[in-house]
Amino acid sequence: MPRFATSLTSLRSSEIRDLMKLATQPGIISFAGGMPDNTLFPIDEVKEIINTLTPQQQQAAFQYGPTPGLPSLLDSLSQHLESKGLPVSTNRLMITTGSQQAIALLARAFIDPGDRVLVENPCFIGAISAFNANQAQLTSIDLDNEGIHIDQLEKETQRPNKAKFLYLTPYFHNPRGILYSAERKQQVARTLAGTDIVLIEDDAYGDLYFYEEDKPRLTPIKAANPSGLDICYTGSFSKILGPGLRLGWLLLPESIYQRCELIKQSLDACSPSFTQVIADQFIRRGMLQPYIERIRHEYRRRAETMSDLLQSTLPPDVQWNRPRGGFYIWLTLPQHIDASAVLKRTIDQGAVFVIGKTFDPKGTQHNTLRLSYCNTNQEQIKKGITIIANAIKK
Amino acid sequence: MPRFATSLTSLRSSEIRDLMKLATQPGIISFAGGMPDNTLFPIDEVKEIINTLTPQQQQAAFQYGPTPGLPSLLDSLSQHLESKGLPVSTNRLMITTGSQQAIALLARAFIDPGDRVLVENPCFIGAISAFNANQAQLTSIDLDNEGIHIDQLEKETQRPNKAKFLYLTPYFHNPRGILYSAERKQQVARTLAGTDIVLIEDDAYGDLYFYEEDKPRLTPIKAANPSGLDICYTGSFSKILGPGLRLGWLLLPESIYQRCELIKQSLDACSPSFTQVIADQFIRRGMLQPYIERIRHEYRRRAETMSDLLQSTLPPDVQWNRPRGGFYIWLTLPQHIDASAVLKRTIDQGAVFVIGKTFDPKGTQHNTLRLSYCNTNQEQIKKGITIIANAIKK
Repeated sequence: MPRFATSLTSLRSSEIRDLMKLATQPGIISFAGGMPDNTLFPIDEVKEIINTLTPQQQQAAFQYGPTPGLPSLLDSLSQHLESKGLPVSTNRLMITTGSQQAIALLARAFIDPGDRVLVENPCFIGAISAFNANQAQLTSIDLDNEGIHIDQLEKETQRPNKAKFLYLTPYFHNPRGILYSAERKQQVARTLAGTDIVLIEDDAYGDLYFYEEDKPRLTPIKAANPSGLDICYTGSFSKILGPGLRLGWLLLPESIYQRCELIKQSLDACSPSFTQVIADQFIRRGMLQPYIERIRHEYRRRAETMSDLLQSTLPPDVQWNRPRGGFYIWLTLPQHIDASAVLKRTIDQGAVFVIGKTFDPKGTQHNTLRLSYCNTNQEQIKKGITIIANAIKK
Repeated sequence: MPRFATSLTSLRSSEIRDLMKLATQPGIISFAGGMPDNTLFPIDEVKEIINTLTPQQQQAAFQYGPTPGLPSLLDSLSQHLESKGLPVSTNRLMITTGSQQAIALLARAFIDPGDRVLVENPCFIGAISAFNANQAQLTSIDLDNEGIHIDQLEKETQRPNKAKFLYLTPYFHNPRGILYSAERKQQVARTLAGTDIVLIEDDAYGDLYFYEEDKPRLTPIKAANPSGLDICYTGSFSKILGPGLRLGWLLLPESIYQRCELIKQSLDACSPSFTQVIADQFIRRGMLQPYIERIRHEYRRRAETMSDLLQSTLPPDVQWNRPRGGFYIWLTLPQHIDASAVLKRTIDQGAVFVIGKTFDPKGTQHNTLRLSYCNTNQEQIKKGITIIANAIKK
């Protein structure tokens, strides 16, 4: 028997894998995965890009690139991020192998075994996994419809066993679906300022807003550049181009950037040049914004279909919000209903979702669940939601 | 100041980065990098693949894939590996984000801080970096022209503070250039059997042999499937398709595979589907073998040009071997010559290489250096080697 490192016991064995398997089972209506719809990818645009690259760009696509990313992509992406008000020129930008790697780099940079980190409850499962892989001790803070509970956050920042960082996904939260209010974000920044607790701001879904009036609420905390606070901002091409390209990014203060670059060297040397060249051209040729417009519109239609159906079919004691962007709707069932029992019933009838416990760092929630509307068409949504609503009623 | 994890002090700050910068400086003749030549990539073949994918393949390229790799690539790669005699059916195959990630996964799976691991001296710098990132204590064992010193290895396996694994690159070693003899490989397997020390066999360059008569020596240790020994075999598409695709692989016993899959989930969720689809088609359409033939021939020409020039220009007290495959020639200068002093001189005259100290886990070698012939044409080789030979003579 190989003598493994003893320090990996906290990795929960199979949840993400099971989730993936469930989500891709043929013939089943899946509200489980967080994957974009296969039929919505910009396949023709990317083919056009590949067929019209210069010889230099073609060669760069096959070759190793610098660890922090291809200079041309760093440049084009910088302009995209500057348009969101982000302080690109006073920070350093790094391309990562998906935003999962961005989170894994930060986890490795900050966490010694046993270190405390603050997360939302519920929390993105990829982040939980990255923090557990570094043997963090997770302290989770509840969410309401405006964001994280500030009183709980204040209490946590004052403990002597000081947390290393707070991990937030304020824009169409995965799995909770919410968009933070501007005020709540200011309160977060004020609460953390001067505490030496770093803020990780995960913005993988912000571009997928459905309503123009929400635009002011989408300004990153990082854009305000609050004093006395180090903010690590991360984003991804997964939802605005394709997860199969495995490209995300980190916008970081210099000292944190230096540390993450060293760790990235040891992990995969560099992110795929091939897909970096594609992403760079996708931005430079003006294809990104029209594509985002297109999928934003389509996801909004799906979200509205699902919301309308939930409204007309769910019992009134089930709590949920109409989404304003992103991929997810979060249901809170009455206390006496067990989401796993509901799931068992819906699997038999051909529809799946993810139970809330999966996203709960404490692992205790039993009456919540996440529905994704991103990877199902109108017809599947109608059929699948009927199955789920009936199962809940039983 | 952010409070970083204290456990990263052993990451040597900037060597790989400096190496990369040196190797890509414009106008300079670089024997420094381990990068394939930009002009040799199979650009037309890959363009043809992309333009003739089925809609299903196109969609898979943009989408998330399973953490261990796309099933179709696992299948086609299995056939390629079976043709080398590897025991694919009794082990598990996993796609990694370059073979750098393969090594990083194994490092994380086995190393607790302070654990001893055995490496060759000199050793691939990416491996040193991955082991240091996990706070390993490196014990390095000398190489001769046939492989690792067995007497030193025996001594090391008998120490009470038992090493977790031995990391070897027996096929056209980076940086040493050598090909292990069949006998030495058997001795390695016999020495490790029953010790609980895992063997990591890195075979990134084995396909690039120059002489048919060497084929028997290229059979992996893993292919013999020796009893009482766990072997983790790793390879890469970087040298036989393109490093910019960031694809490598691991062939592993079941229990080690399970562990690595969990770690990979937390690091980047999956490797790029986009380039996995390309690599799969590159194998399935029969393009891989002809392409390897082509570059094997070209690298042999370059190796022979460089060897002939070294033979005619170097002083007789410089030791080196004519390469029989791979990318590298290793020079051992007389004791009184300092390779860094030679490098300073050649940089001024427009040629660079990597000093041996970079690959020395102990960091003490001063009179060795690595020349790569992979990324320079005939003319550059002639000009550059003249510069280097003159600098050594001074």
